[in-house]
Amino acid sequence: MTSNIADLKSVLHKYPNFPVKGVLFEDFLPIFRDHRLFKKLINCFKNHSDEQFKDIKIDYIVGIEARGFLFGPSLALAMNSGFVPIRKQGKLPGECFAVEYEKEYGTDIFEIQKGSIPIGANVIILDDIIATGGTALAAFKLMEEMKVTVLEFDFVMELDFLKGRKQLDAPVFTLLKEQEQALATKN
Amino acid sequence: MTSNIADLKSVLHKYPNFPVKGVLFEDFLPIFRDHRLFKKLINCFKNHSDEQFKDIKIDYIVGIEARGFLFGPSLALAMNSGFVPIRKQGKLPGECFAVEYEKEYGTDIFEIQKGSIPIGANVIILDDIIATGGTALAAFKLMEEMKVTVLEFDFVMELDFLKGRKQLDAPVFTLLKEQEQALATKN
Repeated sequence: MTSNIADLKSVLHKYPNFPVKGVLFEDFLPIFRDHRLFKKLINCFKNHSDEQFKDIKIDYIVGIEARGFLFGPSLALAMNSGFVPIRKQGKLPGECFAVEYEKEYGTDIFEIQKGSIPIGANVIILDDIIATGGTALAAFKLMEEMKVTVLEFDFVMELDFLKGRKQLDAPVFTLLKEQEQALATKN
Repeated sequence: MTSNIADLKSVLHKYPNFPVKGVLFEDFLPIFRDHRLFKKLINCFKNHSDEQFKDIKIDYIVGIEARGFLFGPSLALAMNSGFVPIRKQGKLPGECFAVEYEKEYGTDIFEIQKGSIPIGANVIILDDIIATGGTALAAFKLMEEMKVTVLEFDFVMELDFLKGRKQLDAPVFTLLKEQEQALATKN
């Protein structure tokens, strides 16, 4: 596990002043360019879940647009779980639950399709990064509307110093902890 | 293969007048809710590629934001290929190639990170649907900028009557052909 994490960390690429001045953006896309690294990423999450939720069926992985789509479905496949997306307003057809969340500037709206997860199901909410936790909290609120159980939040990266996990009423698992100087935003 | 395709088709859901009036939107998200169906989707594409490109290494799957992210990375994993995303303008850090493409109303810009695919690599471009082919053509132009070889375009759905594939200078493989009354748009 430790060497896998070192391998994954070694390909992350930092971009200063992206997407806005003063932000140091950490790009995890290089992981996906190498199927062996991508496989390691999936296995790290799967191994954690297998251990953490031995006797509990994880029914669905819920992934947040857009970077949560890059590895959420693959993790769901590996875990024999379903995958359900949370998307930005206006992207999903049919009746949706909607929730507002705060971005750096102003607010945006997330949606999930009503009925896309059965009531009472066990889910893991997944995204690439947790910063202030605003996005994750919005996802959690959608799960409350759906009347499902959030077993855990899974992230690839976490900006510890922003204390995002304190906002969340479920356990948080992060693969790669980030140093204080790194600051990334939802994109 | 035929029964797999029937299984996949059986869960597609049609939404009239989405995202705009007069459009019949076909939702393939239910496939992802059932890991057995999702696995079938991936296997259909993989089996086709194994047969079509027996002696050729498919180096990268290139997936178009956002629905191409839902199954492109999983297909790449299954094929031991890398995955590289094409995203909408402003989403990717670092130097990018950019290309304009036409949407129903006005134009938009796609980008890909320079250097994310080595020159001369073999790629498959993947998206959920081909309608007029504008999106796929834009992706092809980005691949020309990257100096890589497009072996094929892969889509889940195709709106035959819009003749999108005629615009494309590479083979097109589609899993599920759609009837004439169906019309979906990029979202």
